[in-house]
Amino acid sequence: MTAAVASRIKVGIVGGTGYTGVELLRLLSEHPQVELTAITSRKEDGMPVADMFPNLRGRVALRFQTPDAAALHDCDVVFFATPHGVAMSQAEELLGHGVRIIDLAADFRLQDTRVFQDWYKMPHACPAILAQSVYGLVELNRAKIAQAKVIGNPGCYPTTVILGLAPLIEGGKRLVDASHIIADCKSGTSGAGRKAEVSTLYSEAGDNFKAYAVKGHRHHPEITEQLNILAGGPVGVTFVPHLVPMVRGMFSTLYARILPEALDTDFQALFEQRYANEAFVDVMPAGSLPETRSVRASNYLRIAVHRPEGGDQLVILVTQDNLVKGASGQAVQNMNLMFGLPEDMGLTHLAVLP
Amino acid sequence: MTAAVASRIKVGIVGGTGYTGVELLRLLSEHPQVELTAITSRKEDGMPVADMFPNLRGRVALRFQTPDAAALHDCDVVFFATPHGVAMSQAEELLGHGVRIIDLAADFRLQDTRVFQDWYKMPHACPAILAQSVYGLVELNRAKIAQAKVIGNPGCYPTTVILGLAPLIEGGKRLVDASHIIADCKSGTSGAGRKAEVSTLYSEAGDNFKAYAVKGHRHHPEITEQLNILAGGPVGVTFVPHLVPMVRGMFSTLYARILPEALDTDFQALFEQRYANEAFVDVMPAGSLPETRSVRASNYLRIAVHRPEGGDQLVILVTQDNLVKGASGQAVQNMNLMFGLPEDMGLTHLAVLP
Amino acid sequence: MTAAVASRIKVGIVGGTGYTGVELLRLLSEHPQVELTAITSRKEDGMPVADMFPNLRGRVALRFQTPDAAALHDCDVVFFATPHGVAMSQAEELLGHGVRIIDLAADFRLQDTRVFQDWYKMPHACPAILAQSVYGLVELNRAKIAQAKVIGNPGCYPTTVILGLAPLIEGGKRLVDASHIIADCKSGTSGAGRKAEVSTLYSEAGDNFKAYAVKGHRHHPEITEQLNILAGGPVGVTFVPHLVPMVRGMFSTLYARILPEALDTDFQALFEQRYANEAFVDVMPAGSLPETRSVRASNYLRIAVHRPEGGDQLVILVTQDNLVKGASGQAVQNMNLMFGLPEDMGLTHLAVLP
Amino acid sequence: MTAAVASRIKVGIVGGTGYTGVELLRLLSEHPQVELTAITSRKEDGMPVADMFPNLRGRVALRFQTPDAAALHDCDVVFFATPHGVAMSQAEELLGHGVRIIDLAADFRLQDTRVFQDWYKMPHACPAILAQSVYGLVELNRAKIAQAKVIGNPGCYPTTVILGLAPLIEGGKRLVDASHIIADCKSGTSGAGRKAEVSTLYSEAGDNFKAYAVKGHRHHPEITEQLNILAGGPVGVTFVPHLVPMVRGMFSTLYARILPEALDTDFQALFEQRYANEAFVDVMPAGSLPETRSVRASNYLRIAVHRPEGGDQLVILVTQDNLVKGASGQAVQNMNLMFGLPEDMGLTHLAVLP
Repeated sequence: MTAAVASRIKVGIVGGTGYTGVELLRLLSEHPQVELTAITSRKEDGMPVADMFPNLRGRVALRFQTPDAAALHDCDVVFFATPHGVAMSQAEELLGHGVRIIDLAADFRLQDTRVFQDWYKMPHACPAILAQSVYGLVELNRAKIAQAKVIGNPGCYPTTVILGLAPLIEGGKRLVDASHIIADCKSGTSGAGRKAEVSTLYSEAGDNFKAYAVKGHRHHPEITEQLNILAGGPVGVTFVPHLVPMVRGMFSTLYARILPEALDTDFQALFEQRYANEAFVDVMPAGSLPETRSVRASNYLRIAVHRPEGGDQLVILVTQDNLVKGASGQAVQNMNLMFGLPEDMGLTHLAVLP
Repeated sequence: MTAAVASRIKVGIVGGTGYTGVELLRLLSEHPQVELTAITSRKEDGMPVADMFPNLRGRVALRFQTPDAAALHDCDVVFFATPHGVAMSQAEELLGHGVRIIDLAADFRLQDTRVFQDWYKMPHACPAILAQSVYGLVELNRAKIAQAKVIGNPGCYPTTVILGLAPLIEGGKRLVDASHIIADCKSGTSGAGRKAEVSTLYSEAGDNFKAYAVKGHRHHPEITEQLNILAGGPVGVTFVPHLVPMVRGMFSTLYARILPEALDTDFQALFEQRYANEAFVDVMPAGSLPETRSVRASNYLRIAVHRPEGGDQLVILVTQDNLVKGASGQAVQNMNLMFGLPEDMGLTHLAVLP
Repeated sequence: MTAAVASRIKVGIVGGTGYTGVELLRLLSEHPQVELTAITSRKEDGMPVADMFPNLRGRVALRFQTPDAAALHDCDVVFFATPHGVAMSQAEELLGHGVRIIDLAADFRLQDTRVFQDWYKMPHACPAILAQSVYGLVELNRAKIAQAKVIGNPGCYPTTVILGLAPLIEGGKRLVDASHIIADCKSGTSGAGRKAEVSTLYSEAGDNFKAYAVKGHRHHPEITEQLNILAGGPVGVTFVPHLVPMVRGMFSTLYARILPEALDTDFQALFEQRYANEAFVDVMPAGSLPETRSVRASNYLRIAVHRPEGGDQLVILVTQDNLVKGASGQAVQNMNLMFGLPEDMGLTHLAVLP
Repeated sequence: MTAAVASRIKVGIVGGTGYTGVELLRLLSEHPQVELTAITSRKEDGMPVADMFPNLRGRVALRFQTPDAAALHDCDVVFFATPHGVAMSQAEELLGHGVRIIDLAADFRLQDTRVFQDWYKMPHACPAILAQSVYGLVELNRAKIAQAKVIGNPGCYPTTVILGLAPLIEGGKRLVDASHIIADCKSGTSGAGRKAEVSTLYSEAGDNFKAYAVKGHRHHPEITEQLNILAGGPVGVTFVPHLVPMVRGMFSTLYARILPEALDTDFQALFEQRYANEAFVDVMPAGSLPETRSVRASNYLRIAVHRPEGGDQLVILVTQDNLVKGASGQAVQNMNLMFGLPEDMGLTHLAVLP
């Protein structure tokens, strides 16, 4: 144990007042190889984090401090749980001090800086660093992540859509009509973050269901870029997100039309084999019906493969906790890889059900 | 007013202890031309309905009584808010006494008795009556309903899917690929009825989201049969229902691929024109995002037409209250038509928001 | 009918963008003797109200307009659904034009201007008008309301607590220890209004329960002042409000210790007699357990009287919809009285259950 | 580590198909000193537990088996997560094989067998064993629990009420009027268990709030018996439970009137000192407002002490997760003590927030 303590990873969190921030705190404070060193918030300087998030009372003694480069220079890794644009503005300096970066916002998700500028309404601050960064979807990029200095942690929707489609399209497979895939996705309200907004008030979102951002959502270009890379060619996805009256949980229903030449494929076996060695991707038995609560507060993502009436329409059901596998848990999974730790360290909590 | 009172419709309800039953009571007790005459429940004989449903206290004095043919013979119309199989067993006798029938279960929805038997696991008891019955989707069958003696009141999911697709396919129009339509549908828990079941306990369905019945749902053949009739040819729909943690409300996201020759169509105008004269179908302005709460406790159904990025994929959003337009409200709308009353009588309550 | 139309009440609403505003619109647009004349919002000038509140689509054509004294001068009555301080700043001018006022905020609730200033942090702008205003709890002040020019519409919590205790203390009755009454109250989130605040986000208030404002809540002095008036002497209430994860609904559990000399009282009969002639107060049978949904979207308030194990502790359960009997419905009830209409006109909607 | 593995506690669970059962599985499967040996369910014999509770997929390989004395004889301890009456019928046999018992039902909670029979409608099967059993509220009975063979694990409501009042009354303290204490308690729906019942359907309990069992609840005599023991004399509590539309969480608001001679007491200090050394009882700073989510899925119980306006009315707020500290977590805490393990082993998960 002494040896382990000696090598603890010094971790900083920038912008820890949102939901991905408190989820990082929950996971990292129980991680056996992590030493939480600094957490910053310009607005809440001096406040104990446990005053804002009482689930941490008696267990996390840290206080918010003003973003202070010096405090972060001593870290081994810094997580950015900030709005878009913050991580890229500090990346160069931190890298200069040997600090690795895991950004939970979008600064290092999109490889194409024009697309980034179109959707996030700001020029990219460090294209050179972006070019060396890695998209942190472990199940696709494990080897690169282990070597990376900068990780763009995937968006919550893209995690479900990409992992739900990867077995069908990666490596240019010709199994489904990749030009007209449909991703009908549903998210709990925590995906909208901890901003005071009328549209996510309990009185607005409670006992209610709706689609939103049908005209365009920032996760759409991220999904498309990654699928194009995976498929080695253009993939077309119609993406419609919906808001569910629940706090945590994401559920994506994916529809793909099987190509005539692939009608004999055993899709259940295809998915099982693809993810056979993945600790956090659970391909459920044929006919299963995953539920968001089966992954609540855990890093697991569950997939079920359906082919109604044995026809040519494939229906892939994917569920995860948007704050864990869809954000902070996946970020810790990336950290584990980057520092040579067992990939599941600190991430094996069972889902909370009911 | 005296004249009006003189002509009040005598209404009976068979099986009033479920959610469609209490919703019928709520709507009919405020209907200016209805006299509630009898409500039956074998199990709750003698109990005042207001003891079971306290929202009716002080306003509905009726008591449940054992199903008694005689009590129903004097009615002008009887609503069946019963499990499948009850209405068809009593239809002949009631018709013999000149009583009209509106069945909220499935006995008179499917025209094909073999399909009925496959899905409901019982032979149809009165195929001859079925052949004369009318599928009570007012916006499609108004003239026939006005003459009908027996109405099969549509299922909740079919109401949204059929009204959401009708403008695209009716009369054999060649606008979308009718062989591969997707209906990703979401319902509140009241759609499952007031049966004691583990899967719809608050502790199971609360803070949770899931798909169900992906292998097959009884509303699927109903949707297909009606769409086939509308289109004058085979229509293929992949139908995936989901359960939302809310009590009332249904939301269907429909995907249809536009045919190359129809890419210039103004779909917004098409829908607006189709439903221009409908009191209860609201085609919202282009770009709108309907919400279930915008129709809560009302008979309105709202539709929004989207075409993301102007591509060839049409996305139709449809919402209704599953207990009103999806069940009891539509049943009253049918009754109004059958008795020559204004179609919207007793149905103009505004939705309850928030 | 022609006569009725001729005499329609011209109604204005100031500040209609909150929940009491939209609820006024829902109720008044279906009220047979009301003509909605003007609705103001500085921020949303020109926007159709149905764009903000889609439940009104196709039924309420009004647009928000900037607060314009002239537009309101022609009204017979103006409802203020505004923050505290607005109604009292416009009262004098409106009264000068013969316009009656119903304020849903607190400007005319507290008779003691020092108490008002302590709790609302502003001096009262028109103490003379306040002195002539009437506290609009119909069941207590019916005669005065019929003559009033200015109504202070009661707070939601006070409505339940005062009506739940009135039979026990009014007129100086010596039935319970009035010095140590406990009001443990629970409210849905809509009571907090439609302001963007972190604490009432779905992600904060969902799947969660808490007490709030235990140190002091603005409804406390209102409760105390009214109970003192009713009792003709000092009444002491410990008031603890709680936030329930639901949109609408209020439930107050009141505890009062029966005095030794009153142990033989038939409290059930006392409550039944007190409210025997009230259209909107329902004293339920002995042993009843009211639920918030039994009054959802209706103007009814239900009371159940309990005396556990026949001891000396009285438990009074009171429920209402905080937006109807606790706010906008009660305001319309006041309007009906002020204009000589049947008290229940436009208010007889049954509660929506489930 | 080898030594630790060698000494793992062999654990059996009888009746693992309810919510306390799956919560035991969640906690025990991550407990470093536990070997899950057997789980029984007559009805689900042979079914993998992970098929019923998918959060356990890939982590708990156990299958339900028919209750088989032999399988349990080899256990070191057996948890009963069964209906009342089961544990007492098997206690003698298991004790004869040296197996210790922790009953999560009521068989060993009430010391007075007449009271047990009155409330549970069955005679007690083994009064002699009952006489030697210990009420498993660790913070009160730590020493006895360490020596016990049979534990009656406390009810969820009693845990909050007793821990919230203990500092005020234990040892015959004269601080508050112990004859008229009020416990206004609120629980999520999981407290009602995983039985198919209409009253706890989502459609009934969702978006709704109510009191229940006001005439009498089985936890009432348990509360009273324990408080009497604590106080060394009769304590009178009025107990009103309420049902909150949330899955997990319990919140008790306790009211006690301070005696004139105790008005100078520093109650905040009293509570802080009483629980200073307790790992799972968190006395929050003066003025705090605990929330159920601050303990969700954790074994913590949080208390806040209020004295509104410095008067003579004390308000104690207590919150816990009813399935953890209120049931399965407390049971594991008892097991740890009984087997000489650190009391918090396997119980230090942070609460899941949001």
